[in-house]
This record gives sequence, C-alpha cells and structure tokens, in this order.
Amino acid sequence: MHPDFKQWTTECLALTESFLEKRLPTSDCAPTRLHEAMRYAVLNGGKRIRPLLSFAAGELGDADKTRVVVVSAAVELIHAYSLVHDDLPCMDNDTLRRGKPTCHIQYDESTALLVGDSLQSLAFQLLAEPAVTDEPQAQLKMIQQLAVAAGSRGMAGGQAIDLDSVGKILSLPELESMHIHKTGALIRVAVILGASCSNKLTQDQFKQLDHFAKCIGLAFQVIDDILDAEASTAALGKTAGKDAENNKPTYVSILGVTQARELAHELRQKAEESLNQFGAKALRLQQITDFIVQRNF
Amino acid sequence: MHPDFKQWTTECLALTESFLEKRLPTSDCAPTRLHEAMRYAVLNGGKRIRPLLSFAAGELGDADKTRVVVVSAAVELIHAYSLVHDDLPCMDNDTLRRGKPTCHIQYDESTALLVGDSLQSLAFQLLAEPAVTDEPQAQLKMIQQLAVAAGSRGMAGGQAIDLDSVGKILSLPELESMHIHKTGALIRVAVILGASCSNKLTQDQFKQLDHFAKCIGLAFQVIDDILDAEASTAALGKTAGKDAENNKPTYVSILGVTQARELAHELRQKAEESLNQFGAKALRLQQITDFIVQRNF
Repeated sequence: MHPDFKQWTTECLALTESFLEKRLPTSDCAPTRLHEAMRYAVLNGGKRIRPLLSFAAGELGDADKTRVVVVSAAVELIHAYSLVHDDLPCMDNDTLRRGKPTCHIQYDESTALLVGDSLQSLAFQLLAEPAVTDEPQAQLKMIQQLAVAAGSRGMAGGQAIDLDSVGKILSLPELESMHIHKTGALIRVAVILGASCSNKLTQDQFKQLDHFAKCIGLAFQVIDDILDAEASTAALGKTAGKDAENNKPTYVSILGVTQARELAHELRQKAEESLNQFGAKALRLQQITDFIVQRNF
Repeated sequence: MHPDFKQWTTECLALTESFLEKRLPTSDCAPTRLHEAMRYAVLNGGKRIRPLLSFAAGELGDADKTRVVVVSAAVELIHAYSLVHDDLPCMDNDTLRRGKPTCHIQYDESTALLVGDSLQSLAFQLLAEPAVTDEPQAQLKMIQQLAVAAGSRGMAGGQAIDLDSVGKILSLPELESMHIHKTGALIRVAVILGASCSNKLTQDQFKQLDHFAKCIGLAFQVIDDILDAEASTAALGKTAGKDAENNKPTYVSILGVTQARELAHELRQKAEESLNQFGAKALRLQQITDFIVQRNF
C-alpha cells in the first residue's frame, strides 16, 4: 500500500471511528447490554471499505469531510447490522467475525437480533441529521437511496437469493445477480452518497460512478471467494472454507481460481475506465480499487 | 363502536391497506419468496391502531390524508417488522399471530429475519418520499423521530428490557418504563408524525399531544395484559396466557385484574384531559382512546 494512501485511509477511518464511537449509545446507558453489544458489533475493526469509498467519492466534488463522515457512518452501520444478522444460527451460523466471537456468541441470539435492528434504525437517524447537506431535498433522496440499497431489492434481497441458492448450481449471470444485490447494492450506495455530499457532479458523472461502483463491488466479491478458498482462518479473521463446506456457489466453484482471478482483473480495468473523466480527483477511488483486488484478507 | 367512528376507521384503514398493498413489492418480483412473506406479514389485518392514531392526529391540523397515509404506512411497517422479529424462536417463540401461523412458521426463520429487516428499510424509504410534506426540513425531522422511536432507545430497547425482565420481579415504575419503550415509543411517534403532516400545531400542542400518546400507549398495554390473562386464544388471534406461561411480569401479575382495570381508566382520563384544548378536532383521538380501553381483542 502506497504510504500516502495509507495515511489518507488512516485519517478517514479515524474520522469514521470517532464519529461512530460518539454516536453509538454508551454502554452505561439503558438498556446497557444491548448498547454494549451494539458497540461490540460496530467498533471492532473490519476493513471499512464502504466508509473509504464514501470519502474517496466525496473528493470528486471536494465534499466537506464533516459531511461525508455522517454518510460513511450510516452506510457502515447498515453493513455492521447485516453482518450481525447474517452470522445468526438461522442464517450462516458463524461463530467468528473479524477475529472475535460473533455477536450472538459473545452475547446471545435475541440480543444480536436487536443489535441488528437497532443499528439499522440508527443509520437512518444519522442520515436524517441536519449536518449532512444544506439541501434537505437532496438529503431525503439520499435516505431513499440507502433504504432501497438495504432493503428487499438490495442487500436483504441478495441475502434471500443467497440462502435460496445453497446446494444449487448457479450460472455465472445468476451468481452475479446475487452479488449485485447482496454486497453490490451497499457498495454502490456508499459511493453515490459520498459523491452526493457535494453538489458538483452531473447526472452523467453519477452514472459513470455507479458503473465504477458496480464493477468494484463484483471484484470485491470475486476476491472474497478466492480468499475463502485459499486463505487461512487466521489471516481472514473469519472462518475460511465456509463456502465449500456450506455447498455455496461461488466464483471459485463456477470458474476455478485462475479464471476468477482473471475476472477480478477485468473488473478492475472496467472500474478504472469509468474513472477516467474525473482525472486526478479520482486518485483515492483508483487506490481503493487496487487495494480491493490486491488484498489478502 | 359508534357507527360514524366505525365508518371513519373503515375509510382510513382502506387508505392505509391500499397504500401498503401498492407499495409492498409484489410476490412475482424477485426475490419472490421474500416478497411474498413480506406481504404475508403486513397485509394480514391486525388492529391497525397506529395508522388510526396517525389519521386522528392529522385531523387536529386538517392534514391532507394523502400525506398522512404515507406516515401511517411507515409506522405500520415498523410495527409489522417488530412483530415478525418478536415472534422468532430466539425471542417470544410464538406460532400464532392474528389468527394465522407466524411468519417463521409459514415460511422459515431466515426468511422471517429478512422480512423484518426489509420492512424496516421500506418504512424509511416511504417516509423519505416527496409526498409526505412540502417542507423537506420538517420531513427529515420526522424520519429522525421514527428512527429514534424504533431504535435502541425506543421500541427495540424496550424489547431488550422485556427479555431481560423474564423471571424477574419488576416494580410498577420498572414495568412502566419497559412499556414506554416497547410499545409506547411507536404509538407516540404515530401520533406525532400524523400531526406533523400539517404545520398548524404549536410546540405546546405537540407537548400535550405527546402526553396524550404516552397515556394511551400505557393504557393499551394494561388492557393487553388483562386480555392475555382473561381472553381466549380464539378471541385474540394470538396465543393467550403466554405471559404467565413465560413468567413475564405484567400489569396483571403486579396489580391483579381489578387494579389493572382501574389503572387503565385512570390513564384514559389523563389522556382525555390532554385533548381538551383541541376541542372538536380531537373527536377521533377521543374515540380511539375509548376503543383502546373498551376493546376485547
């Protein structure tokens, strides 16, 4: 990772962490166990790709970072809630997340359920705050966009397709459609909302940006599948090899590792082409794209 | 029920039903099973007290019904999501709701989990739509109010306190605090958001209205506890006697039925006093209050 990029990510993530730290209810505030568990689920590291994407997209229109941080936190709360619910026994039944026991293991199932529910509410609460933009009409649109991305035609819908696909043989387009919903929708909205914190982008630029986000969302998933097949549990901080064990269709199970790697690089190229028109302002988005494809955790 | 009140409720509920019917994704839209289950969970009757409260509060400032209907639907979606999650095995583990199998019995646990998650997103999506008010700034505040009412310091927090209280002896104030969160927060926000669809009320009137809503929220719960102890499963459309069976503290277990009834009537009086200043425009809120205390289901 380039030292300058490293420093930029450190700064952005410090902003997001300190905002989340401040806005999550403290664990001495009733109901204390729920609030402690919410903080456990959110303030436990993770790659924070979505917040980084929001900040990087914000730079395209020189958005104020004190605005982008709210968006980045809202999107990360939706992501964190989805992980807590996905790990539940009735879903992926996973016990390890980011190197620590999953929320329902550390606490209990009912607490984990309420943690996810409450984190989703908190995301919309933050995104409706006056700090986000001077244009309340635009802000309402951003709330709608996050709600659609999170809901049954976005992330939650992708999760439903995923559950339904266990043990089935999917075609490549079917697998792609699942991921466009399951992880893609939230990655796209992280980019779009970050860019929406300024009002300098044209409709056409938003379209280009959305295409960029779609490509890196898929690339992210392809790499995830490769890592699940190849990396160790220790390196990932979550249980490796779960996909094969659960008989889940993945890019690796359909294409094999070599072709999956080729696909990731192709997606990276397409993503980078979509950034061309933004010139130097797209530097951070380019660097994140490289990171997504080259990461080993 | 007064025939005129009966007709008013029928009209309001028809508006809410048809709006929900139109805005819930159809079950031929992918992911089909999730969408079918979302419709099952929402379009299955219920008392629809919260939508009625929104409409009745809207009348205080002559709010446009085409606006109130959006608010009523958003609040009802939050309520419906909470029922689906509350019925899950890791929570109340209930099999019957509104006379039909609960969502996870009719479908499965993972679908029910995603149904609840998606309904919450949809609520915020609807409330962010342009139709709600001409004042986007006020609308952002309404979204915040719904998010706070639904979240860890509102409904979800009340659910956490509830789970934590099983098998414990609560004092009356502790029980009250639980219900102010668990059911009270959403009832209050249903009233406040309905009234917010017009911009004719003063800050003081909102305060009075909030006190009204707090009283009827508690009265609603007291009656619920009495019915759970006295009515049959057939009459309730949900499993009766669950509270005692689950060793849950209730108004009946703490006060006995007679004193619980007295408390309900006292709360009704306080609620009605808060409505005095609104004069004839509060007719529907008064009628709903009577209905809440006199209902037998």
